[in-house]
Amino acid sequence: MTFNLNPLINHGVRKGQAGFQGSTLKCLCPHDKVEVQVKGNVAHNHACGCTKCWKPEGALFSIVGVVPRDNDAVTAHADKLHVVDEKATIRRHACRECGAYMFGRIETHDHPFYGLDFIHVGLSDDQGWEEPRFAAFVSSVIEGGLAAPDDMGAIRKQLQALGLPTYDCLNPPLMDAIATWQARKKGTLKTEG
Amino acid sequence: MTFNLNPLINHGVRKGQAGFQGSTLKCLCPHDKVEVQVKGNVAHNHACGCTKCWKPEGALFSIVGVVPRDNDAVTAHADKLHVVDEKATIRRHACRECGAYMFGRIETHDHPFYGLDFIHVGLSDDQGWEEPRFAAFVSSVIEGGLAAPDDMGAIRKQLQALGLPTYDCLNPPLMDAIATWQARKKGTLKTEG
Ligand SMILES: [Zn+2]
Ligand SMILES: [Zn+2]
Repeated sequence: MTFNLNPLINHGVRKGQAGFQGSTLKCLCPHDKVEVQVKGNVAHNHACGCTKCWKPEGALFSIVGVVPRDNDAVTAHADKLHVVDEKATIRRHACRECGAYMFGRIETHDHPFYGLDFIHVGLSDDQGWEEPRFAAFVSSVIEGGLAAPDDMGAIRKQLQALGLPTYDCLNPPLMDAIATWQARKKGTLKTEG
Repeated sequence: MTFNLNPLINHGVRKGQAGFQGSTLKCLCPHDKVEVQVKGNVAHNHACGCTKCWKPEGALFSIVGVVPRDNDAVTAHADKLHVVDEKATIRRHACRECGAYMFGRIETHDHPFYGLDFIHVGLSDDQGWEEPRFAAFVSSVIEGGLAAPDDMGAIRKQLQALGLPTYDCLNPPLMDAIATWQARKKGTLKTEG
């Protein structure tokens, strides 16, 4: 059985282009599309199984990455945007009509990823975006009701066959970054071995 | 540089014995030791970097596993035990004098691991215990102030060289089990692919 991981990667992971300058994300409405202009490339792009990420209809994973918050701007139909969950730390701004999540923003300084916005490059037709390089929160597709526990072995294999290492949290560099931020905050950071 | 991961594994991982019937955990006091008798072998034994686990002096990781809560019993000097943090979900019962954590128990039914107690087989002299098979919450040793971020690559390599795959959460089977428990609770569990 082949799973619908995400349309962007189902038929292979397409490498990004060096020097890509960014592009425009467009919502899925047939007209009057919300548009978000993104300057520069995405970073830490990955497949994400978490229950809060926006996934195309029928897909198990989102494809999500980050850009500095000053690098994206709503350039059309901002009035159609609403925040999906006001209580969530990441404020996900979605199109009220088609449901696409246009960007997620952290408004609290007290967060390891403050300063970064989360975007879905699948909302752009351009092909230069940095390719997804890992899969995060894989086990969460069970919690989301998207996959049966018995299918997880095959789902992880399908991701790994695409060259995407699988994690049930974020990848080690990001997990280390979070832990470092927490250590700094607690005053426990060890700076040399 | 070689890191003090945990005395139990620093010089290699010793395989457990099939049919091992359990043994007695003893605290580190020179006399009047707290004793906990454990029936049967430990399961899911692993190295853990989380900030709440008990680690021998100078070690980066605990070695921790689980037994059914009916399989362990305090058999000596119960009066020396106290709960380290009454607010923590896992109530860790430690020796007031030497600080060793004798067992951790979950008292709320509303937890994926309810029914299991957490124990440290390093508190037993016996060698039949199931060997640790993975390393969990590896990035957390940064938060605990035990390791510098720059050392994490070498720490993960040292664990992997021992045959222990490294994770920054639990391992996939346990993460899937948690997600399945959460899905069942939310009513989202998908039971077939
Ligand atoms: Zn729309
Ligand atoms: Zn003691």
